[in-house]
Amino acid sequence: MSRHFLAAGSPELAGGDYGIVAVVAVIALAALVLGYVLLKEVLAADQGTERMREIATAVQEGAAAYLNRQRKTLAVFGVVVFLLLLFLPAEDWNERIGRSLFFLIGAVFSFSIGYLGMWLATRANVRVAAAARESGGREKAMRVAFRTGGVVGMITVGLGLFGAAVVVLVYAGQAPKVLEGFGFGAALIAMFMRVGGGIFTKASDVGADLVGKVEQNIPEDDPRNAATIADNVGDNVGDCAGMAADLFESYAVTLVAALILGSAAFGSSGDGLVFPLIIPAIGVITAVIGIYITKARAGESALTTINRSFYISAAISAVLSAIAAFVFLPSSFDGAPGNPAVIATFSVLIGIALAGLILWLTGYYTGTENKPVKDVGKTSETGAATVILAGISVGFESAVYTALVIGSAVYGAYLLGGAVALFAVALAGTGLLTTVGVIVAMDTFGPVADNAQGIAEMSGDLEEGEGVQVLTELDAVGNTTKAITKGIAISTAVLAATALFGSYSSAIREALTNVGRTVGDSVPDSFVDSIISPNTLVGVIIGAAVVFLFSGLAISAVERAAGAVVYEVRRQFRDIPGIMEGTTRPEYGRVVDIVTRDSLRELATPGLLAVFAPIAVGFGLGTGALAGYLGGAIACGTLMAVFLANSGGAWDNAKKLVEDGHHGGKNSEAHAATVIGDTVGDPFKDTAGPAINPLLKVMNLVSLLIAPAVVQLTVGADASPALRITFAVVSVAIIVAAIVVSKRRGSAMTETPAETPTNA
Amino acid sequence: MSRHFLAAGSPELAGGDYGIVAVVAVIALAALVLGYVLLKEVLAADQGTERMREIATAVQEGAAAYLNRQRKTLAVFGVVVFLLLLFLPAEDWNERIGRSLFFLIGAVFSFSIGYLGMWLATRANVRVAAAARESGGREKAMRVAFRTGGVVGMITVGLGLFGAAVVVLVYAGQAPKVLEGFGFGAALIAMFMRVGGGIFTKASDVGADLVGKVEQNIPEDDPRNAATIADNVGDNVGDCAGMAADLFESYAVTLVAALILGSAAFGSSGDGLVFPLIIPAIGVITAVIGIYITKARAGESALTTINRSFYISAAISAVLSAIAAFVFLPSSFDGAPGNPAVIATFSVLIGIALAGLILWLTGYYTGTENKPVKDVGKTSETGAATVILAGISVGFESAVYTALVIGSAVYGAYLLGGAVALFAVALAGTGLLTTVGVIVAMDTFGPVADNAQGIAEMSGDLEEGEGVQVLTELDAVGNTTKAITKGIAISTAVLAATALFGSYSSAIREALTNVGRTVGDSVPDSFVDSIISPNTLVGVIIGAAVVFLFSGLAISAVERAAGAVVYEVRRQFRDIPGIMEGTTRPEYGRVVDIVTRDSLRELATPGLLAVFAPIAVGFGLGTGALAGYLGGAIACGTLMAVFLANSGGAWDNAKKLVEDGHHGGKNSEAHAATVIGDTVGDPFKDTAGPAINPLLKVMNLVSLLIAPAVVQLTVGADASPALRITFAVVSVAIIVAAIVVSKRRGSAMTETPAETPTNA
Repeated sequence: MSRHFLAAGSPELAGGDYGIVAVVAVIALAALVLGYVLLKEVLAADQGTERMREIATAVQEGAAAYLNRQRKTLAVFGVVVFLLLLFLPAEDWNERIGRSLFFLIGAVFSFSIGYLGMWLATRANVRVAAAARESGGREKAMRVAFRTGGVVGMITVGLGLFGAAVVVLVYAGQAPKVLEGFGFGAALIAMFMRVGGGIFTKASDVGADLVGKVEQNIPEDDPRNAATIADNVGDNVGDCAGMAADLFESYAVTLVAALILGSAAFGSSGDGLVFPLIIPAIGVITAVIGIYITKARAGESALTTINRSFYISAAISAVLSAIAAFVFLPSSFDGAPGNPAVIATFSVLIGIALAGLILWLTGYYTGTENKPVKDVGKTSETGAATVILAGISVGFESAVYTALVIGSAVYGAYLLGGAVALFAVALAGTGLLTTVGVIVAMDTFGPVADNAQGIAEMSGDLEEGEGVQVLTELDAVGNTTKAITKGIAISTAVLAATALFGSYSSAIREALTNVGRTVGDSVPDSFVDSIISPNTLVGVIIGAAVVFLFSGLAISAVERAAGAVVYEVRRQFRDIPGIMEGTTRPEYGRVVDIVTRDSLRELATPGLLAVFAPIAVGFGLGTGALAGYLGGAIACGTLMAVFLANSGGAWDNAKKLVEDGHHGGKNSEAHAATVIGDTVGDPFKDTAGPAINPLLKVMNLVSLLIAPAVVQLTVGADASPALRITFAVVSVAIIVAAIVVSKRRGSAMTETPAETPTNA
Repeated sequence: MSRHFLAAGSPELAGGDYGIVAVVAVIALAALVLGYVLLKEVLAADQGTERMREIATAVQEGAAAYLNRQRKTLAVFGVVVFLLLLFLPAEDWNERIGRSLFFLIGAVFSFSIGYLGMWLATRANVRVAAAARESGGREKAMRVAFRTGGVVGMITVGLGLFGAAVVVLVYAGQAPKVLEGFGFGAALIAMFMRVGGGIFTKASDVGADLVGKVEQNIPEDDPRNAATIADNVGDNVGDCAGMAADLFESYAVTLVAALILGSAAFGSSGDGLVFPLIIPAIGVITAVIGIYITKARAGESALTTINRSFYISAAISAVLSAIAAFVFLPSSFDGAPGNPAVIATFSVLIGIALAGLILWLTGYYTGTENKPVKDVGKTSETGAATVILAGISVGFESAVYTALVIGSAVYGAYLLGGAVALFAVALAGTGLLTTVGVIVAMDTFGPVADNAQGIAEMSGDLEEGEGVQVLTELDAVGNTTKAITKGIAISTAVLAATALFGSYSSAIREALTNVGRTVGDSVPDSFVDSIISPNTLVGVIIGAAVVFLFSGLAISAVERAAGAVVYEVRRQFRDIPGIMEGTTRPEYGRVVDIVTRDSLRELATPGLLAVFAPIAVGFGLGTGALAGYLGGAIACGTLMAVFLANSGGAWDNAKKLVEDGHHGGKNSEAHAATVIGDTVGDPFKDTAGPAINPLLKVMNLVSLLIAPAVVQLTVGADASPALRITFAVVSVAIIVAAIVVSKRRGSAMTETPAETPTNA
């Protein structure tokens, strides 16, 4: 592996390099300022009728209450990890403190972006609903919805780029280690936001549907259903807050991987720390262009509009990146073959092309106009079982092709990179990053439109007609953009993880050198990082198993929390007279409280699994098995994430097809069959699936961080098998305890008296 | 890796060794004779009423017709592969011809066992049904059913052991290469039998249910349904023929792996070729004991009876194996640490313990008395969506624990084995083998009872009462034993694959030596078999993706073939007057013909994928990526196989729970919800899931066989990148063409006129 890296030595920044990085930081700040300008524009829009504002306020309060409670839970976690990080080996105290400090900064940034995404979405929803009421409502509604996305997109790339640039400016040669902390903070918090928000949103949604649609036969978003506000809150804390944190994390970790690999690839030249910042800075500029050129045209679907903006900004990014590579990079490495400018250009292009391909593939598999969703819709005529099977087939198939496309991108960059193969893979990641601004803008769109529809429905202040139609169209487009975002996010996971794999390898080699050993020397077998060792293979199996376990835990957490919602809504219908007649308001707040409590409780088990499983494998089975573990988790995680996201997306849109009048239309048996498919898909696509991306990043970064400690305890001067095994056993014990506790909750829910719901 | 192997050199058999192997061969022949004796006993039983015999004859003819047509299809495949194998590098012509010849023998054995399993099951079913009518029917019916299993069990272990012993006797030092051919033949045919039979059985089952139960509202196995005979035929060609071939293959390949690794571990001593034969020979003896002690006791569930036989025979195997190890093996290796007798004893014990644990775990997750199935049953009260989600959670969870148990067994043997770690893993496999005889007997039980129930129902010659109850009980037990068999089969896949991984590594090293290179030398990057290389990681992703693709293809093949059944049954109801009134017999044979044609057509795509994907990866990306590919496939395949089998088993038994009167009983809404779960589970547990075991073996053996050729074309004297890339491109083209063709068929089915079924 060492041949992937040129001469080692900490990179040093020359004077000119500092200047360029400073420019990048200024561009990042400009993005933040622009975000603020867009924010003012969104907030200035009309807020609609009093009833609409009232509902919006309830949603705002519920969402803020949830995130505030989540913040407290996560703060405890954050402080513990902050301290633990201080104990891990580092070169000196400067690096040690920097790593912990930037872990906190990454975590705070990740949470803040999530919070902002939620805060803004809960204010934009009512404004979009209001805009849809006006004449020329379609353009106005789209503009508000897309500008809202623009704010979140700008803040995401602005904070990510600014954070990374500051680390490079301050820490220069030690930047890689500090960046590990920054990325880890971002990924850890994003994973919790995804899991917690995902459980919240789907528990409310499924719970509301099971009592409302199934038992009481009242429509979705009916104000008599006590869970409707919780459902709307869920859209914001899951699809907005969780998604924004997730994409920020994708941005930050991919950038971190590129900087770490860049510093390794270019040895003592500072180019490796500068160039990976230039590409996303170009992305900021093209994202601004993308956001401003997105304007609704009459007679054109919203998806076409969005796609056009994406492709135009991607093309501009490609051209500017190529120019940047030839201007900034030397035309040869010091004493190694290959032209850095050429390698960098094509690597970045691979990343941009990958984003475009994922956009197209996901659109094909989940869009209502294409064969896969139509086929799923058609099976609704033979019942729910065939709908489920068809959706699963679509999910498997699309997962395979998506994984192969991502794999080809990795392999292409690898072949292209020659001696700096891993850096090339990381650069492909930065190419992907240039599209993140537009992607975030596209995605925020969906839940805002969905919520606007909910508010319009609940307030009753939007007549049938153009207004309703506009919101329905935007909601359907939102389903596809949401699936696309998940595809892009998981692509960043693979690229970043592959690149970080390289860092993991260097970390082990460095740690071995520090303890006076080398690979190939008489180091224990667990350090022979061959895939062919049974040890490694067991690691691969455990890595794949953790992905299955994590997905299963997330899905059953939703089931349990939804059970609690069903119970509470039933209780309100029974105990509070006048709800069904519409004379008394249900107690919306109680349902929000219950889901808040349950989501925060349920996120602990998958979260602990993600952090402690690699620790258990690393200390217990060694670094070879841990490498296998990461490989298994990445491979299986990629497929599982896309499978879950696309099956869910296909079922959701198959239901929309039937609701649009195909195969019998609303209230037919075919419709009932697709509603079952959609309900199965809910926790697939919005809880388990999207959380796998941050899961992979967290596990990779944990492995990277503990690698030197594992080596020290195994073959170092102070080697201590007892301590090593203790760490592993404690980690396993924590995971097992967490699973047992959440199983107990499950039992309490399925086994109690008559009044308790039975679906949990 | 080379430190896993002691001094190289072809093993030579001493005179005493020949004697022992000859004794093993005699024991194998004795098993065959005993199988014949049991066969006579089964055939001597009463065949019931004329109407019962008539139905049984129709099933016999349908099943024979299918397997005869399948034989022709597979013969073409067999001859092509026979010739291709001749072209692959080998030491000399003796080895080359032996490999091809024993490939054919393995293939013929595999097919013959499948055929025999089917042949006998279609004769035993009517005899079990007849026995159930008599007084004291329970004991008699169980005896016939279990003795039928005994025949298949004896023939499976007899042929497997005999084939391996003959190879060792004839080829001695060259046995490993020849055994690769033998194992490959067995695995390839078993995979086709599993896939083809799985498609046949589930297409008939799902198709029959969709028209019969859903559209016409007539009971299962109603003689007015044209698909009923096909459904009964399916149980025999899928659950009997496919299962028998699969277990034979598991037996043969695990034994082959142990012999290959044994010959490597013991260098020039013959012990490594003798001891792995002794353990399964012990298994033959204990299987006989297991079969004879299985006697129904009044007031005891059939599952308890079977489990007791299993545990008793496993305990005897353990004791005898330990004795054999200390008698036959030396107490030290030539100049290496470790005591072979101790290592062998504990490795075999690990394998036996693994079988017991899998039996228990699978029983826990799929048995009707335990929490998981009860929980799934309970969710039926809130509808089909919660049933599906709960079943998927159970599947994920059980897959994780099963994979971890298997992983622990591998790791345990690995730690124990020290310098001969891989041989220890292979020996754990032979420990598992000692239980195969009883396992086959247990599994054949299920479909025979299921079929007996079908015949009783169709003939109308079995009154309600004890007889019916006996058959229902046996059928429910069959569901659990089927799931257990799949768990054991996938365990053999992991153990054999891990062990074969070692052979793969040696094959590459040997091939490199042959071309004058060594690993670590300036061989191309793709030979650096580090898990950390992006190249390997891409291999891992592709390996995992192939498992998803294979599963998706199998599931959608069932959907398509079931669509054709629906169409034909509908046509018969429409065009043939008097069917519904019971005055005219439907044309059963036409449905059998259609499913036969479709199954044979549909098995091609997944089959080609299994064979050509490793060829494409090996020649295209190199041996490092191919190693990663195998790792990804094993990890993901194990989880997927258990997930599919156990979700399906849990849904099936949750339906049985409801039918037993829980949650509203038959014809309630809860029942409808569990029927949907069961239908989703059908292709999971009987088509895609069980085929993954032979898939993994086939891919492993293909990789092992092509490894030397890949090395020669890449770095050999006659290296030819052009030829290498050509092989890869042609392989990819074959896979893509097969997928496109089967997609086309899908389109034809969903897009045609009104009279065509729409569920495909």
